[in-house]
Amino acid sequence: MYENLNQANAAVIAEIKKARPRLVDVKPAEACIPALSDGMTLLHAGPPIAWPDMTGPMQGAVLGASMFEKWAANPAEAEALAASGKIRFLPCHDNSAVGPMGGITSRHMPVLVVRNAEQGNFAYCNLNEGIGKVMRFGAYEGEVQTRHAWMRDVLGPTLSDALARIPDGIDLTALMAQAITMGDEFHQRNIAASALLLKALAAEIAGGKSSAAAQQESLRFLGRTDQFFLNVAMAYGKCVMDAGARIKAGSIVTAMTRNGRDFGIRVSGLGARWFTAPVNTPSGLFFTGYTQADASPDIGDSAITETLGIGGAAMIAAPGVTRFVGAGGFAEALEISEEMREIYIDTNPMFQIPTWDFQGACLGLDVRRVVETGITPVINTGIAHRKAGIGQVGAGTVHPPISCFEQALEALAIENGIHA
Amino acid sequence: MYENLNQANAAVIAEIKKARPRLVDVKPAEACIPALSDGMTLLHAGPPIAWPDMTGPMQGAVLGASMFEKWAANPAEAEALAASGKIRFLPCHDNSAVGPMGGITSRHMPVLVVRNAEQGNFAYCNLNEGIGKVMRFGAYEGEVQTRHAWMRDVLGPTLSDALARIPDGIDLTALMAQAITMGDEFHQRNIAASALLLKALAAEIAGGKSSAAAQQESLRFLGRTDQFFLNVAMAYGKCVMDAGARIKAGSIVTAMTRNGRDFGIRVSGLGARWFTAPVNTPSGLFFTGYTQADASPDIGDSAITETLGIGGAAMIAAPGVTRFVGAGGFAEALEISEEMREIYIDTNPMFQIPTWDFQGACLGLDVRRVVETGITPVINTGIAHRKAGIGQVGAGTVHPPISCFEQALEALAIENGIHA
Repeated sequence: MYENLNQANAAVIAEIKKARPRLVDVKPAEACIPALSDGMTLLHAGPPIAWPDMTGPMQGAVLGASMFEKWAANPAEAEALAASGKIRFLPCHDNSAVGPMGGITSRHMPVLVVRNAEQGNFAYCNLNEGIGKVMRFGAYEGEVQTRHAWMRDVLGPTLSDALARIPDGIDLTALMAQAITMGDEFHQRNIAASALLLKALAAEIAGGKSSAAAQQESLRFLGRTDQFFLNVAMAYGKCVMDAGARIKAGSIVTAMTRNGRDFGIRVSGLGARWFTAPVNTPSGLFFTGYTQADASPDIGDSAITETLGIGGAAMIAAPGVTRFVGAGGFAEALEISEEMREIYIDTNPMFQIPTWDFQGACLGLDVRRVVETGITPVINTGIAHRKAGIGQVGAGTVHPPISCFEQALEALAIENGIHA
Repeated sequence: MYENLNQANAAVIAEIKKARPRLVDVKPAEACIPALSDGMTLLHAGPPIAWPDMTGPMQGAVLGASMFEKWAANPAEAEALAASGKIRFLPCHDNSAVGPMGGITSRHMPVLVVRNAEQGNFAYCNLNEGIGKVMRFGAYEGEVQTRHAWMRDVLGPTLSDALARIPDGIDLTALMAQAITMGDEFHQRNIAASALLLKALAAEIAGGKSSAAAQQESLRFLGRTDQFFLNVAMAYGKCVMDAGARIKAGSIVTAMTRNGRDFGIRVSGLGARWFTAPVNTPSGLFFTGYTQADASPDIGDSAITETLGIGGAAMIAAPGVTRFVGAGGFAEALEISEEMREIYIDTNPMFQIPTWDFQGACLGLDVRRVVETGITPVINTGIAHRKAGIGQVGAGTVHPPISCFEQALEALAIENGIHA
């Protein structure tokens, strides 16, 4: 169908540019993701992984979700259940979904519903829990459960009601185009996009049918959760990259993700196959009392942002982030984005970066370029404690193992009849 | 008291750095500004000016305010009243206030109440009306009156109620420190600060005692008024510069403002004296259908932002603005801010600019440096149509006449016993 990889890649990129994901609803996960209605099923971040191979943060979140779903009354019961093999674990990515850090998503958790107004596909992501003790970093008791119950009973329905009052929902491309001019790279910094989202929702929340208390609590939560938009950006990235993946050809990376053990990538010309290798451990800056030795290995679906070309690749849009992740000042941010331009073959006309003299964000991560140059994408990431239940201990940067890209390139060569 | 101007300037700058203005209330202007309770009094932008000398936008606003206060039933009556000399016109700046463009402020208009938590002084500014036909640009009939009545009856009380629910109000320094990392320079771009302000207020508006309709209307207005924060930033600037002006010595500019005819400056060592010269006319980009020939001469108190060292001096914080005001791209923005560093003698540790490699915004505009270098501050400004009632026709940049600074320097020399 395509004469060569370049033509195929152009088609993939055209689909990505065409996509117009809109935030249209917030619903219980089981209403969107059929697999979750079938017995005890949990979605997780990264490529497939079994319970015994999960690292602390993901195991902790499994305990938390099992208790949230009332499959277990306490952590000991939950651990026994998980070890019994009765829980089915599926990657978010195989279910039109993404999840930050552990990525554990269960049937009664509310998810963001993002619909692509052009190609029609949907993507989902759970809601950002804010900071402190949170399930995505492996905490599972007390306030974690209280917050998840509140998100299910109050925040989710309030947001759903507000979004129902906005015809066709919120145009996320337009919102993000504005936010990238305001210092967000959408992985470690989402303060502008979160504020713009609140701005779009506030009047509809206040005008909606939720109770006054629900409205006030929801607005307060959105007002103090500066990373609320991260999960929206992830669903956006998944929606866009799945649209690109419809072109079943080319060498464009359509997913990058980590389960805490393996880094996995998917490539447009190789469908749903995972190319995996052991993850690296992020390095960066640590909160007081923690050091590099506490860092969990790289984990989470949030690298979907870098798959699209934002996050670390858009470091120059967010020089504030370079300090947060320990990557230097403005000059270093510029250097990082310039280096990334070596491996992304196009730029995104929707996401113009004023600090890059209005150049568009990176777009089209090409496995060939990664292998040729030896440059791997830089990923801006939160750092979890390696033990379950402790939570976030820092933020930094990490790179995928290049072997994922090498394997994929080899598979592409075979697929295209070029045997080594 | 001070051995030389340098010591005096250091004291002025110390007061400026110490100031911590907080947005604590929104009240009818007459409740804050005593002069407004005395007969038919209007505040205006810039140094003193009489009705016949006012340009179109300010005269239009005078008609609008006279009708709003029911001093006149229609424009013809209002014009006759203004020409009769029965209206007393006072500069905002002499009443702890500032006002954008015409700056016309009357007793029943709601004003932002900004209190300096350190030195105790207050500053006031009317509320931003949004875009379209607005009084500050000289429009006076129909929707202008409807909107002002709504601001008086609905928006003002709703904001007052919400602010009363926040102990000690909103720390504007902290909010602006965040917004300047998000591409705001607080004169032509306030989208981040406006969104952060909405974020701070939304839950308190929803939790307040205003009607559901008032809450929803207020949130919707704040949500779509990206320049809402301009007026807050102006009150902030006035509050801070008035704190600096308490040191009655030195060569730091404490006010720059324009009434459409004259540009006026005040200097720390010269108290409330105005040093004036005819204004220039801004040049920049015009909305479709308008040209440079339609531009009103420079007008408004909004140059209080540049007096503080934000606005045009902080162009590098807001490369997006350079395109809006027709001043080029990122490199040009950098050049402008670097040039401004020649005439501002310090930087503001509260307002770090990531795109300037985390250097603080300019601070301490020194008349000596302006005269020595011949460099005048660049002011980012909206451009009004020169005729009353038409409104904004573009945005651009403008410079003060250097003669204001030359006169002030001469007066300083005399004041300090150095006769030329």
